[in-house]
Amino acid sequence: MISRTEYERAAAWAAETLARAGIVITPEERARLEVADMGLGELEKTGLQLLTYLNTERCCAKELILMPRQTCPEHWHPPVGGEPGKEETFRCRWGVVYLYVPGDPAPVPACRPPEGSEPYYTVWHEVRLRPGEQYTLKPGTRHWFQAGPQGAVVSEFSTRSTDESDLFEDPRIDRTPRVAD
Amino acid sequence: MISRTEYERAAAWAAETLARAGIVITPEERARLEVADMGLGELEKTGLQLLTYLNTERCCAKELILMPRQTCPEHWHPPVGGEPGKEETFRCRWGVVYLYVPGDPAPVPACRPPEGSEPYYTVWHEVRLRPGEQYTLKPGTRHWFQAGPQGAVVSEFSTRSTDESDLFEDPRIDRTPRVAD
Repeated sequence: MISRTEYERAAAWAAETLARAGIVITPEERARLEVADMGLGELEKTGLQLLTYLNTERCCAKELILMPRQTCPEHWHPPVGGEPGKEETFRCRWGVVYLYVPGDPAPVPACRPPEGSEPYYTVWHEVRLRPGEQYTLKPGTRHWFQAGPQGAVVSEFSTRSTDESDLFEDPRIDRTPRVAD
Repeated sequence: MISRTEYERAAAWAAETLARAGIVITPEERARLEVADMGLGELEKTGLQLLTYLNTERCCAKELILMPRQTCPEHWHPPVGGEPGKEETFRCRWGVVYLYVPGDPAPVPACRPPEGSEPYYTVWHEVRLRPGEQYTLKPGTRHWFQAGPQGAVVSEFSTRSTDESDLFEDPRIDRTPRVAD
């Protein structure tokens, strides 16, 4: 749960960061920029800001906007309704983002999980994405990511997005947006 | 058929235009920027430049880079291998693009087809896309588009792309890239 003030502040920061990255959005899109605190109430550490351009039965495109060192916590996309899980490509547009997936763990990872949430971060193969670099995740792959010290803007190209079916390692996480009025 | 020189010149222009639009690409991507003259040998009038970020079994993302008043000719995406045709969303990032689809014809269209190709342009409902504006085409929808006087950069988010199965109204068109050496 986050306050309306905090929500608006994060959305305004995300809009400015998109502009800094050279990405133009419409006033309608500005008004529906989404702030996801994942229910942990520590948005600057755990969560992200996003803008969904489209999400049809077959494909989806979003911009993800991360504050400096903000972390999208470990999750994966299971099969839904007989379809394989969501397939995602992350393409860094601005800043730097570190993506963690299964595989050889980084000997000295560039990121640490948010303090107090360490048990819920289990995959440590590190992929650094700078602007123009991208990485495709097969359905069902566990992943988490954290922005570098400037924050980051990341384009996501994927099959249909069904946030409510995502599975998170941290049982405290609640992906349903809740804002206190 | 276009000459190697013309191909390289068009690719260089496309790379500069992406940079002007604030879109960062890698050296590997720069090297595989595609120039499609559609076999008509009049690239500045008919054709486009493109960069495919990814094209998996399930989704595809590209940047399309159009020269001033360059036209991507009328075509549509039929069903392939039992799957519905390609679903496409065009999002303008820079410049202006005019998209033509079935529906009420524009009384005074902003664009004219390339000279000599008029019979092959049959849909005249006009959608103007400025930066941040987008339009989604259902599978099988006939469409063509032309950039405004500055050129345009357009992101395409879609299901799998199979260029070789596209159908064009103009029987002279050949989507297979051919460069004279």
